[in-house]
Amino acid sequence: MTTLKNDVFDRRESSVRSYCRSFDAVLATARGSVVRDTSGREYIDFLAGAGALNYGHNDPDMKAALLDYVLNDGITHGLDLFTEAKRSFLGSFERLILGPREMDHLVQFTGPTGANAVEAALKLARKVTGRTNVIAFTNGFHGVSLGALAATANSSKRMGPEIPLPGVSRLPFDGYLGDDVDTTDLLGRMLADPSSGLDAPAAILLETVQGEGGLNVASARWLQRVASLAAQHGALLIVDDVQAGCGRTGTFFSFEAAGITPDLVVLSKSLSGFGLPMSVLLVRPHLDQWEPGEHNGTFRGNAHAFVTARVALHKFWSDVDFAEDIVRRSVLVTDRLTELTERVPGLRRKGRGMMQGLDVGDGACAAEIIRRCARNGLIIESSGAENEVVKVLAPLTTPDHLLRKGLDVLADATVGLAMAVPA
Amino acid sequence: MTTLKNDVFDRRESSVRSYCRSFDAVLATARGSVVRDTSGREYIDFLAGAGALNYGHNDPDMKAALLDYVLNDGITHGLDLFTEAKRSFLGSFERLILGPREMDHLVQFTGPTGANAVEAALKLARKVTGRTNVIAFTNGFHGVSLGALAATANSSKRMGPEIPLPGVSRLPFDGYLGDDVDTTDLLGRMLADPSSGLDAPAAILLETVQGEGGLNVASARWLQRVASLAAQHGALLIVDDVQAGCGRTGTFFSFEAAGITPDLVVLSKSLSGFGLPMSVLLVRPHLDQWEPGEHNGTFRGNAHAFVTARVALHKFWSDVDFAEDIVRRSVLVTDRLTELTERVPGLRRKGRGMMQGLDVGDGACAAEIIRRCARNGLIIESSGAENEVVKVLAPLTTPDHLLRKGLDVLADATVGLAMAVPA
Amino acid sequence: MTTLKNDVFDRRESSVRSYCRSFDAVLATARGSVVRDTSGREYIDFLAGAGALNYGHNDPDMKAALLDYVLNDGITHGLDLFTEAKRSFLGSFERLILGPREMDHLVQFTGPTGANAVEAALKLARKVTGRTNVIAFTNGFHGVSLGALAATANSSKRMGPEIPLPGVSRLPFDGYLGDDVDTTDLLGRMLADPSSGLDAPAAILLETVQGEGGLNVASARWLQRVASLAAQHGALLIVDDVQAGCGRTGTFFSFEAAGITPDLVVLSKSLSGFGLPMSVLLVRPHLDQWEPGEHNGTFRGNAHAFVTARVALHKFWSDVDFAEDIVRRSVLVTDRLTELTERVPGLRRKGRGMMQGLDVGDGACAAEIIRRCARNGLIIESSGAENEVVKVLAPLTTPDHLLRKGLDVLADATVGLAMAVPA
Amino acid sequence: MTTLKNDVFDRRESSVRSYCRSFDAVLATARGSVVRDTSGREYIDFLAGAGALNYGHNDPDMKAALLDYVLNDGITHGLDLFTEAKRSFLGSFERLILGPREMDHLVQFTGPTGANAVEAALKLARKVTGRTNVIAFTNGFHGVSLGALAATANSSKRMGPEIPLPGVSRLPFDGYLGDDVDTTDLLGRMLADPSSGLDAPAAILLETVQGEGGLNVASARWLQRVASLAAQHGALLIVDDVQAGCGRTGTFFSFEAAGITPDLVVLSKSLSGFGLPMSVLLVRPHLDQWEPGEHNGTFRGNAHAFVTARVALHKFWSDVDFAEDIVRRSVLVTDRLTELTERVPGLRRKGRGMMQGLDVGDGACAAEIIRRCARNGLIIESSGAENEVVKVLAPLTTPDHLLRKGLDVLADATVGLAMAVPA
Repeated sequence: MTTLKNDVFDRRESSVRSYCRSFDAVLATARGSVVRDTSGREYIDFLAGAGALNYGHNDPDMKAALLDYVLNDGITHGLDLFTEAKRSFLGSFERLILGPREMDHLVQFTGPTGANAVEAALKLARKVTGRTNVIAFTNGFHGVSLGALAATANSSKRMGPEIPLPGVSRLPFDGYLGDDVDTTDLLGRMLADPSSGLDAPAAILLETVQGEGGLNVASARWLQRVASLAAQHGALLIVDDVQAGCGRTGTFFSFEAAGITPDLVVLSKSLSGFGLPMSVLLVRPHLDQWEPGEHNGTFRGNAHAFVTARVALHKFWSDVDFAEDIVRRSVLVTDRLTELTERVPGLRRKGRGMMQGLDVGDGACAAEIIRRCARNGLIIESSGAENEVVKVLAPLTTPDHLLRKGLDVLADATVGLAMAVPA
Repeated sequence: MTTLKNDVFDRRESSVRSYCRSFDAVLATARGSVVRDTSGREYIDFLAGAGALNYGHNDPDMKAALLDYVLNDGITHGLDLFTEAKRSFLGSFERLILGPREMDHLVQFTGPTGANAVEAALKLARKVTGRTNVIAFTNGFHGVSLGALAATANSSKRMGPEIPLPGVSRLPFDGYLGDDVDTTDLLGRMLADPSSGLDAPAAILLETVQGEGGLNVASARWLQRVASLAAQHGALLIVDDVQAGCGRTGTFFSFEAAGITPDLVVLSKSLSGFGLPMSVLLVRPHLDQWEPGEHNGTFRGNAHAFVTARVALHKFWSDVDFAEDIVRRSVLVTDRLTELTERVPGLRRKGRGMMQGLDVGDGACAAEIIRRCARNGLIIESSGAENEVVKVLAPLTTPDHLLRKGLDVLADATVGLAMAVPA
Repeated sequence: MTTLKNDVFDRRESSVRSYCRSFDAVLATARGSVVRDTSGREYIDFLAGAGALNYGHNDPDMKAALLDYVLNDGITHGLDLFTEAKRSFLGSFERLILGPREMDHLVQFTGPTGANAVEAALKLARKVTGRTNVIAFTNGFHGVSLGALAATANSSKRMGPEIPLPGVSRLPFDGYLGDDVDTTDLLGRMLADPSSGLDAPAAILLETVQGEGGLNVASARWLQRVASLAAQHGALLIVDDVQAGCGRTGTFFSFEAAGITPDLVVLSKSLSGFGLPMSVLLVRPHLDQWEPGEHNGTFRGNAHAFVTARVALHKFWSDVDFAEDIVRRSVLVTDRLTELTERVPGLRRKGRGMMQGLDVGDGACAAEIIRRCARNGLIIESSGAENEVVKVLAPLTTPDHLLRKGLDVLADATVGLAMAVPA
Repeated sequence: MTTLKNDVFDRRESSVRSYCRSFDAVLATARGSVVRDTSGREYIDFLAGAGALNYGHNDPDMKAALLDYVLNDGITHGLDLFTEAKRSFLGSFERLILGPREMDHLVQFTGPTGANAVEAALKLARKVTGRTNVIAFTNGFHGVSLGALAATANSSKRMGPEIPLPGVSRLPFDGYLGDDVDTTDLLGRMLADPSSGLDAPAAILLETVQGEGGLNVASARWLQRVASLAAQHGALLIVDDVQAGCGRTGTFFSFEAAGITPDLVVLSKSLSGFGLPMSVLLVRPHLDQWEPGEHNGTFRGNAHAFVTARVALHKFWSDVDFAEDIVRRSVLVTDRLTELTERVPGLRRKGRGMMQGLDVGDGACAAEIIRRCARNGLIIESSGAENEVVKVLAPLTTPDHLLRKGLDVLADATVGLAMAVPA
């Protein structure tokens, strides 16, 4: 697919590479919502590091702090030793995020990928409860290391029969059987029935909006009922806020609107603010039953990420302005996508906040739209069981004119395709 | 344990933190082999990011390249899209590392932790062979995500009965039953016997020097026999070179001296050169049977790490000078540790290259030595089943005088303890 | 619980014993539907070996054949060697059962328990399809050896976290969410959705009437839809007819009324006719992909059971008289139980054919009814998630006057309890 | 392979059948050590139900008792209700077997196959210890249901990658690495090393003589060391005495000579004495932590087997005569097999007591010997990893002249083959 014949990518990179197959420019620099390739061509970025760049590329304030830190020989790699950078981050996270939300959670620094943090969450939940089983949902995505993969629903990521993916029971997510069926009825019934065959769960693991699963949204009522069932049956509630967190849905945590407080929260992607690898697991104090060193990893102390993360918290979460900005931009996206669904039959708007997209019916159609967008200067991707949902994952900081411009490109590609292909 | 009462670490960090319990200064800056805490006190660093800082802290050339890259808005986070930074790294890696060693391996960029790359290796080996079982060894350490953890031998990291760790058979590492027993006899016999109960393995996974396992060294002969048995029985040979690679034993890969070529090689820790999160899996071309996107992760394209990694390759691996330096310093370490074992009865020198240490008999004794070193300005840590091996893991670039100074501190602590505690 | 203090049972039998706790007479002889204890007291038997005595105790024709066989030194134990007794059984089974139903299935003689045959079925399904996952249902019961246990839903039988029960996904049985919800909608949706997290199944395993699960009945329509979904998605349909088969629901196989033909059928319990251990797995010819000896067991050739099984087939299944008898008796049971539900509020009739019972609301209530029946000369037991269903499992051959008499005892106990305990 | 073309066996029996492929006569009657086929031809039986017929076929005293029991309508199928037949068996087993050996074990009646009892043993060991891992040995055979199969070493019985066989670690049996290597060294080292990767075991499961594994004999010293290591590390010692028990090695239990007392003992095969399905698990009282009904099964109360089992105990184990007979016959077998090994180069005698055989080097050779024996009126089979051990498993009651005659046939076949095939 890539046109870079005889390039080192062609000679030496594994065939597992993926995004570069639908967008094969070689990127060089980036700022805000715009990236530039080696030939100088610019693209609006509606992929945003798959949600890792909520504040855009190379935010000037984070950049300045990082440059200053590196220039002064700030320690880069700190394992889980105490560092000034980690202390500052922790202090800001406590003051700006946890405190105002009355969350008494402790912070576990895990290996700096979401999957590492999900693994820690599952291990801790099993240790604390003495139970094995974890309930995860249809279309959930939680990473590809073995423990996390067991909870991931996507068959293209799950393995063949060569290795069992143990310890997970699968239940239908909100809306899986249509709007009329409350899928917590099945969950509640199976949890209460000693002969349901659902082993008592250590945890219920969920995303409030399923990013890779196709922008499926759990309603507040559904989340509340799941939280209540978890508490009632001695299971920890784990929210994987890797993609939906850090402001993507309008609040710092995606579950704030539902008024629930998970026992464990997984954060990653946009946590460092700058796209640097960083993950944490938030743990209610009474559940923090780790022995020292029981879970470890070499890159838990990525100080560069702590430095930029702290700036991100101060710049964007010190007051309500940014949250209000996100809401405003979300309305813009909602309006434009709704308009599109009215123009083109068969489209469906999905998601919420700045995590919305268009279900265009099938993956081939989505792929064609993505190709057309790429040709017109917009990087955008799809998700969903069949990659049928084109996902608008613009930086939350995208200026309105660029957001509109990107949405225009998407609209043109979509309408153009609809006209080219008879329904 | 930490003395930082009422500090945010005390209030908010999970009890899982570990290294900071034996060394509780708050670190601020670092350069080369020396780190400095917030009070300005300096320490010689013989921990070196648990092997992630083979070239020391904040190497000036890598630092300059990184500053330049950030200053110019080089793209930071690139998923698995093509980036200039990745292309440059790949080119250098091909020219300076793979080419000269006649390795035709492809490079898979995985999530940037060693565990992520081990998970990818195990998944690929199982996919390619259609087999489930993986052979791993006593005292092996390969990470703590579920698939990797199954191969990790350390019981303090493995879980309780709450979750099975599937798909791994355990066999004795070289020397496990003493110098007289060739443990490949058992491996060979079990592989050949259809009724041994050892299911046909997808892979044999090993470290050539077991870092966390206590600096146990596999002999070249043992490695050759394992490689030959793997080939004979259709199993892939995976070398986890996370800690022993990137020059730690004297050559870029730790297996070069044995003259074997693994099917899959896992690299991480010092790969970025600067302590930034980065991992790759090297894959022989005919084994690169991934579907696009079959294994993914958000932080596979950590461009900052690519930038510093490239500088590290050029600076240290363009000619043989650095390798010769390592050998010279290794001899220095060997000599000083041997001397110590001659002065203090009951000590045993272990390891090879710049991955050596002292087996001091038990973990309590090692912990006391570590505390004494810390008080005298040396950061050092232990490994082994009972944490009984004090590990000299100094940066490979440590100037001789600092290396000697650090070894002096270690010698004083060890001798002092031996005199304080009657045998 | 047992009153046999100082008896050898008290001294030497494991605490795992169960049925003897609610009925502690020491049984000596039995004939038809009546058993007699060591003191000469007689009981009507509505337990019937938990469905293993569909033709009653010590049927005179089977008994005569067995005596004759033993007297003449017929071979007792034949492994899987060819024996005259097995040949005769196979011939009769082909002629009287398989042939008339146009079933071309082959017969696998497994270890002589239902669990052994279920294990064989699961192993074969996985081998043939190359898939691991098996779909089983809420409240299903399939035995307690590890593979079968994984499919068994009852939490009191399933293990704690000490051992994973692998390879089974659980879905709701017919009626699990009430009469209005067609639970095949969820099954169908998850099978069709590549991101449902339900791995492609090797088999769908079910009972048409869940015996231990509380006499839950699958409708013909539900069974047809499940059969169709299995076929459509490449999964084998396995019917566990251990308890519902051999005439219990009115036809030899319980699935005949639904017009489906399972790929694999598990038979045991009443197959020998005489209560002797015997099990078979019926396998469609193209699925019989076993290597010789790939699945074995010492007691697959229990010739005594073959002898009585053959007599049972000839005596009861040569014409339609017996099937008509069952239907008539079933109506009698239905009528009497319905009458009871009308007299006592809160009762619910469950099951079909001669596999009916009363849901009395909770296990304590059922236990008291069982105790009252025992005192009045009726052996009867309960099943269901909470043991809340009192189960009328009389021999299919029970003379009408004994059936009525037993039902009278049950009615008295139930009404008596209802009057004693205010609602 | 079978010559019974168009027979019902050919039309309707699964291809899994095995023994009948090397011996395809259709058997009709049997008495003592002689079986007779439908044509009246007689064969000496050195297979003896794979060890299920230690007292020969249709022992006249057991037969008389069984006939009497059936004639008088003794209850046949008793679930786990109290029956007169079970009480008598228990009393005799206590008085004649457990009492004299000072074993205070309780008796659990499991489903009537060895695998059922092994499954119960593993489940109980895991429940009692709260641990998952079970240590089993190279070449061990414990049955083919999933839990037992995990402990079975034979690759032709174990599954492919379709289903994981969980919870078992494999270690080398006595003699696996030759006479010079004490394999308990590895066991002891791995149990003591917290970083060996061997999870703390719930149980160590072994046969004292591996029947299916090729008549490998554990020495008394090895058994004692394993027993001692199990006790030291909190693991239960489970002896699977299914094939080696009931007198096969000279004493009722095979472990008596070693002076060890296992925590759990599995008995089956010859326990009923008559070849009828029956199994028990013997459990030390403090380990009998089952909840009532926690492990169940339909055919646990096979009263016919209890009746014959009781006669067998009284007839053969009331005094030492039978044990002395076995020893005498064992010497005869040893002498004759030793003689053969002296005549034919490359043969090796294996086993002990009446559980001996000849390692003839490979399976093809063994198969040819078996065919030659069959032609000359001797039923005999092989075992071992490659089916390379021809197994003399004659009834313990075989009259000396028949034993000699059978051994003559074996000798002729072996010598004949050796002469036909140049070494």
